[in-house]
Amino acid sequence: MKKVLILGSTGSIGENTLKVIEQFPEKFQVVGLVAGSNENKLLRQAEKFSPKAIALFNNFSSKPKNVKTYEGLEGIKKLIEEIDFDIAVSAITGSAGIMPTYWCACKGARIALANKESLVCAGKFIKEKAKEIIPVDSEHSAIFQCLQGEKKENVKEIILTASGGPFRNRENLESVTVEEALNHPNWSMGKKVTIDSATLMNKGLEVIEAFWLFELPSEKIKTVIHPQSIVHSLVKFIDNSVIAQMGTADMKIPIAYALSYPDRLPLPFPELNLNLYGLNLEFEEPNTEKFPCLRLAYESLKAGYPYPIVLNAADEVAVELFLNKKIKFIHIPAIIEETLNRFNAPPPFSIEEVTEIDRRAKELAKKVAGKYIV
Amino acid sequence: MKKVLILGSTGSIGENTLKVIEQFPEKFQVVGLVAGSNENKLLRQAEKFSPKAIALFNNFSSKPKNVKTYEGLEGIKKLIEEIDFDIAVSAITGSAGIMPTYWCACKGARIALANKESLVCAGKFIKEKAKEIIPVDSEHSAIFQCLQGEKKENVKEIILTASGGPFRNRENLESVTVEEALNHPNWSMGKKVTIDSATLMNKGLEVIEAFWLFELPSEKIKTVIHPQSIVHSLVKFIDNSVIAQMGTADMKIPIAYALSYPDRLPLPFPELNLNLYGLNLEFEEPNTEKFPCLRLAYESLKAGYPYPIVLNAADEVAVELFLNKKIKFIHIPAIIEETLNRFNAPPPFSIEEVTEIDRRAKELAKKVAGKYIV
Repeated sequence: MKKVLILGSTGSIGENTLKVIEQFPEKFQVVGLVAGSNENKLLRQAEKFSPKAIALFNNFSSKPKNVKTYEGLEGIKKLIEEIDFDIAVSAITGSAGIMPTYWCACKGARIALANKESLVCAGKFIKEKAKEIIPVDSEHSAIFQCLQGEKKENVKEIILTASGGPFRNRENLESVTVEEALNHPNWSMGKKVTIDSATLMNKGLEVIEAFWLFELPSEKIKTVIHPQSIVHSLVKFIDNSVIAQMGTADMKIPIAYALSYPDRLPLPFPELNLNLYGLNLEFEEPNTEKFPCLRLAYESLKAGYPYPIVLNAADEVAVELFLNKKIKFIHIPAIIEETLNRFNAPPPFSIEEVTEIDRRAKELAKKVAGKYIV
Repeated sequence: MKKVLILGSTGSIGENTLKVIEQFPEKFQVVGLVAGSNENKLLRQAEKFSPKAIALFNNFSSKPKNVKTYEGLEGIKKLIEEIDFDIAVSAITGSAGIMPTYWCACKGARIALANKESLVCAGKFIKEKAKEIIPVDSEHSAIFQCLQGEKKENVKEIILTASGGPFRNRENLESVTVEEALNHPNWSMGKKVTIDSATLMNKGLEVIEAFWLFELPSEKIKTVIHPQSIVHSLVKFIDNSVIAQMGTADMKIPIAYALSYPDRLPLPFPELNLNLYGLNLEFEEPNTEKFPCLRLAYESLKAGYPYPIVLNAADEVAVELFLNKKIKFIHIPAIIEETLNRFNAPPPFSIEEVTEIDRRAKELAKKVAGKYIV
């Protein structure tokens, strides 16, 4: 019986994790739930799964009786310190997920990692502490699966697939609306990651995440547009043999894998059964002129710390402004690029400095964004 | 340094094996070459690779001086008994490959298996003796690679891909010529296997081969038509995650893998580099009404010994008659089906009995074929 703590339990990954755990009560026990602001959903989850403790980043409006509660970032830290768990599902959205993931890593638990910012911004510090990180992102889970039983020195390159988002075939991105950008063709996800998919920044962040996860140089991390989102990623070996992982576009598969690795779970969800007959899988080169965010991610990875932190911070600011209809879709890469160009600071020497750089980069990004805001 | 014996060195697999070995003189040493009738090519190979011994199934017209020679099936047996080798590449075509493969298995060498008849007809006896069988067939190599680091009890099904052959989109097979059938869209192979690809019998034999190789029930062995021959096969696990192996349609990749497993070799052949960009991979259900050979193979596998031996024997007879323009393409499955229906014998209790059943089934198939011969 594995004790599971879920960071970000009310989000899309968190809810899917609970759906998987619900099917295997003999294998997993939910011991803690952490959410940001959705108090009602958190309380409903607590009632159903009876964890030992729950935490809300915001304050509770009314505290439930039969479960220990914590509030605020300090409360989350305390919960992580005080309760005992084997696996932490790290699924808080954005840079808010970094410190909680770090605290869980320090406790020696397996990190089932969905929060890519943890590695994008603090990969160095979290890798130092973590005993075991199993990726939940479908692309990284795919690569992790493809690497089973293989030697790292035999890897020629890893290839992350990208759906290409809703604007793959659209000529002019000038007039893109928020509603259009939120309408992802294949995956149902949170708002931030859906916009990141539309700009290809999501793929850029995944490239940086892969750099830390698999400890490969950026030249060995490639991307390919694959509109059907059936092949979740591929690994090419030195003998030119390519291993790919495929499946329906449903996060329950990589979540279950991260929970059960090195075993696999007999998932009882019929919708996950991939029917090969009639499939038509296309692959094409990503267009980094039309989608500069992917290029910016590679550049920040090659430039090294602190630039990936700045990239991520500026993206969070820009995406939020876009979601609030303050800026245009095409301003997102413009704001990120200018923030990267203007930011100046030495690399972080501790995870606390990561947080500080993130804060300062966000400030700068907001300043940079000023001229675009309508 | 691994000592390699090649059974069937002058065929397509044999020649590709030598091309791979040539690139890695520090890793592999050719110690023996065995061929059927192509004496000139065998002698040229012997000159280039300086094996300890060579054998020809036919008689030599003139024996070379600086290498030990053997003749006939007894000579091949003697060569296998007398020379020392770590890996035997089993690449003789057809049922003639069964006994030599068995003798190599008895010596405890790794079998790099390309001769599918060895497992189709004598799987029980060869598996009993062999210490290690690494498949060379691209489909089985793919599945073997996909299973690395995985538990067999987590396999839901294995899925063999088939190109569909040259007649996938042809309505009427009544008028198929030998030249048309030999014109395989993707792979360059020997004549027998090319015709088997056109009838889908090749896939049927591969299903039976997979049954022995992976020890899975026939219900867990599926096939899918994939005209591009880029995905070489797939494994679906109980969590509905699918792992696939891909590559260019070139046997050097699975040959090198079978030689170097569990390592991989940095193959220096630029033509093997798969470019994902622009790929379009299609999958469709096989049509067993149009191609009855695939159905017959499943039926013979379910019926058990001796029927897979009969299936294979009748197919060899029918394909040879077709290649000699004695029967029509559509008579191949007809002859096999009638031979299966009319053959009556208990299962074999030894590999010698396999040879006897093969002989008797061929006799019957020739009799059955009589009414079709023009």
